[in-house]
Amino acid sequence: MKQRPAYTSTAAHQKLLQLSQQPFSLASEATLSSKRLQNYHFCSKHFDFHYWSQRIDDDVLECLQELAEECQLVDQFKAMKSGEVMNAIAGVESENRQVLHTAYRDIFSDNPWCQQATGLAQAELAKLKEFLTQVDSGAICNQQGESFTTMIHVGIGGSDLGPRSVYEALKCFGLPDRRVVFIANVDPDDAAAMLDQVDLSRSLVNIVSKSGTTLETLTNEILVREKFDQAGLDYRHHFIAVTGEGSPLDNPEKYVRSFYIYDHIGGRYSTTSMVGLVMLGFYLGYNKAVEFLRGAAVVDREAEEQDIRQNQALLLALLGIWNHSYLGMASLAILPYSQALHRFPAHLQQCDMESNGKSLNREGGMVDYQTGPVVWGEPGTNGQHAFYQLLHQGTEIVSSEFIGFREAQRQKDVIVQGTTSQQKLVANMLAQAVALACGQKSANPNRLFQGNRPSSILMGKRLTPEVMGALLALYEAKIVFQGFAWNINSFDQEGVQLGKSLATRLLVEMGPGQDGDETTERRLLKAFAIG
Amino acid sequence: MKQRPAYTSTAAHQKLLQLSQQPFSLASEATLSSKRLQNYHFCSKHFDFHYWSQRIDDDVLECLQELAEECQLVDQFKAMKSGEVMNAIAGVESENRQVLHTAYRDIFSDNPWCQQATGLAQAELAKLKEFLTQVDSGAICNQQGESFTTMIHVGIGGSDLGPRSVYEALKCFGLPDRRVVFIANVDPDDAAAMLDQVDLSRSLVNIVSKSGTTLETLTNEILVREKFDQAGLDYRHHFIAVTGEGSPLDNPEKYVRSFYIYDHIGGRYSTTSMVGLVMLGFYLGYNKAVEFLRGAAVVDREAEEQDIRQNQALLLALLGIWNHSYLGMASLAILPYSQALHRFPAHLQQCDMESNGKSLNREGGMVDYQTGPVVWGEPGTNGQHAFYQLLHQGTEIVSSEFIGFREAQRQKDVIVQGTTSQQKLVANMLAQAVALACGQKSANPNRLFQGNRPSSILMGKRLTPEVMGALLALYEAKIVFQGFAWNINSFDQEGVQLGKSLATRLLVEMGPGQDGDETTERRLLKAFAIG
Repeated sequence: MKQRPAYTSTAAHQKLLQLSQQPFSLASEATLSSKRLQNYHFCSKHFDFHYWSQRIDDDVLECLQELAEECQLVDQFKAMKSGEVMNAIAGVESENRQVLHTAYRDIFSDNPWCQQATGLAQAELAKLKEFLTQVDSGAICNQQGESFTTMIHVGIGGSDLGPRSVYEALKCFGLPDRRVVFIANVDPDDAAAMLDQVDLSRSLVNIVSKSGTTLETLTNEILVREKFDQAGLDYRHHFIAVTGEGSPLDNPEKYVRSFYIYDHIGGRYSTTSMVGLVMLGFYLGYNKAVEFLRGAAVVDREAEEQDIRQNQALLLALLGIWNHSYLGMASLAILPYSQALHRFPAHLQQCDMESNGKSLNREGGMVDYQTGPVVWGEPGTNGQHAFYQLLHQGTEIVSSEFIGFREAQRQKDVIVQGTTSQQKLVANMLAQAVALACGQKSANPNRLFQGNRPSSILMGKRLTPEVMGALLALYEAKIVFQGFAWNINSFDQEGVQLGKSLATRLLVEMGPGQDGDETTERRLLKAFAIG
Repeated sequence: MKQRPAYTSTAAHQKLLQLSQQPFSLASEATLSSKRLQNYHFCSKHFDFHYWSQRIDDDVLECLQELAEECQLVDQFKAMKSGEVMNAIAGVESENRQVLHTAYRDIFSDNPWCQQATGLAQAELAKLKEFLTQVDSGAICNQQGESFTTMIHVGIGGSDLGPRSVYEALKCFGLPDRRVVFIANVDPDDAAAMLDQVDLSRSLVNIVSKSGTTLETLTNEILVREKFDQAGLDYRHHFIAVTGEGSPLDNPEKYVRSFYIYDHIGGRYSTTSMVGLVMLGFYLGYNKAVEFLRGAAVVDREAEEQDIRQNQALLLALLGIWNHSYLGMASLAILPYSQALHRFPAHLQQCDMESNGKSLNREGGMVDYQTGPVVWGEPGTNGQHAFYQLLHQGTEIVSSEFIGFREAQRQKDVIVQGTTSQQKLVANMLAQAVALACGQKSANPNRLFQGNRPSSILMGKRLTPEVMGALLALYEAKIVFQGFAWNINSFDQEGVQLGKSLATRLLVEMGPGQDGDETTERRLLKAFAIG
């Protein structure tokens, strides 16, 4: 991997430091001027992006453009797409892998960035299409010859959050009589609750684990398999897998079909690979799953644009750096005004914090600046009745990203007091951005709003499979751009290893199958103690 | 309301400032010494509380005790319980109300703190018991004489998050053939999705709004009522309400029954009032709902203890202040190792951030210190495969609160590799606390963990209705104690008003029932512009 500068070593950085001393005040009248509303806004294929509500002006934008260029952000993005080994740290033992989640979306191109990876994707897509055709026709069915109606998706982390959030987002586009339930947590209550809801005899169980050895997934697989045994069902007619080629899950004796994922796609970037597509294909049908990919492909292409005012992912990334690294905001709130996106903040939390919650730069040295922020959020308008109090009047300044749509997904709405619910959603979202930005003067100090809380707004037409693919890819690209600017490896996750190995040591100390008490816990902890 | 000092004006504060310069290093061997594990830990009726994993020593604890006393935290808590007007700001127009959510839990006492409020609670509980008896016996039923099996709970904010999180937590304790669905968001897709799942003819619709005028709830009520009309059902046999006496929802012509809530219980503290209890009573049965109250009552009593080492709510509060106000951690992660608690962090996010996300002190002046942190979280072990990377190796230091249980709720478990899933959950939770605290040295800088990430652990036996009540009350008391120390009014929410009024202005600008486009949005925003 070539050396690329961190943002702190650029000339633009010095200028931005200076500019950050007196950032644009959103509490000024200029914030909602026609000029600003017009200029700090642009449309991509699927989203209008409003950023007049950020603490920026033309000078800041110009420097952010320079920073993007000095850090070669777009060039690195293209290098990633073409198969350069981006998952690496110089001089340090690391995964040393390509990063090619975009290759799955490059199937629509005549000239894909990485022919080999896109070829592998096409092969799996062909397998999936053929499999789904057989499921639809009844050629693949249960032992009684009945069709499958339910998928039990068993995975954790990247094999769960992304697929689950997209499923929830697209729930209303499902094929008739198809549903999906998810089991992720090793919590036995979770699995039991899910399994109580389904007819096992009509269920396909999709075990998703790249290594085929993830302890939670393995445990839940055994738990589900026991349920099949108890029901007198032969699990071998029901289980499929998404896994690495040659893993323990790649076994036709135990699995009706095994779909492959490759090391060049990391878990948190795997929703558009077989990790998400097998489930989505089953639920939505193959064609809608491909639309989802198409939406992502559009954004992957848009993200190649060098002009930050024409590249939403890049501008989102740079505005995030401005708020976090220059204006000192420790956390980022993702606020979708769409209940369908209720799990999307949790997916982004993973994708962002696991990618950019790092302290080591790509040369193996410790960074001397802040990397990724804490990411959290809940849908509006619910959140307005909850944590928005702190956003408006708290002492922690949080930056926000709103996501909204002009039309409801389902065509069911009601007019109350002259407006539809969808209009109320949109009006609330815009009003919140204005309130956070502009604040309000008041003689009553408890009704004083200082404003200057920055946000941006992504506004789409309607949340369809294609738009969901675009939204997902937009945030993936944003996160990757930020990692490049912070000069960190956004593609490994060494930070999750220590807890895992300590848990394994504790489990050895535990007696088989015993419930503990507080003495046990202290005894267990003593296992780590030296003194 | 009497004047009470903010923490910054105490003598303890000066000492804590000093001590915070060199806080205890958790990366030392002493962290897991027998003495520390033993001393920094104590049991209440329902929880063992471990805090050896905080950056504290005896000196810090002593100062925190002093701070609690100088700020009269426990005395203020008792004053609140006895009916003093705590929801007020001196010299500023404010709600000027008592704060008496604890009065509902004081029904078990022969000598309640506030006889009048507890009397009102008892009257509503008697109404509820009688109502549920009639629902159970079939005396209250649909027009075909069939019993009700489903409750559609319609509320938002405090009328939604608390009840919903408790319902999710206690799902496995429900009466046979009873279920609850929730509609909160004004998003029409949300309501449509929920209503698709239920048999309206067997449903009770519970409209929850103190004022009876909350726009989202009103809108959703109309939407649900239209569904009843379309199904040829007379809604007047199906709708009940939880509301203020005399509100538009207090109307026997439209509602089978209206249960009352009073101004002395704020939305986010209302789960143990009729706001949560009507739903819980329907789902769990009256007796289990009372057990839930009993758990809360136990904690309300425990929270009167002056010794911080015997008062879990108070110690949680003070450790939070230590981490946030002295060690500078901007956010707090709530990490339940129980999938049943998957919505509990969202409830706490509301309860905490809406209470303590303030900038005005109780004398009407602006604070010159940080008040409440950002609160967020997701269940483990899922989170371990997601955002824990940042917790371990990120540059933002986050403090964490783990919540776990020794036994599964349902008695279904599986032994894999010698241990049950529940043991794996507990082992993972303890291991994470150790890993965050102690870190790990390594020659590979990417496997280096600096440690010193503080956390605490609440460990219960099993998540029952009583234990859930205790957990809820524990956090309520914690939040209230922190508000007292920061000398803010934790009981109002002026910060949500501005967005609401701007949204109303926007809705007036919108044409009736039209979908917008990007020009419309800019036109709308221009409505706020002066220039």
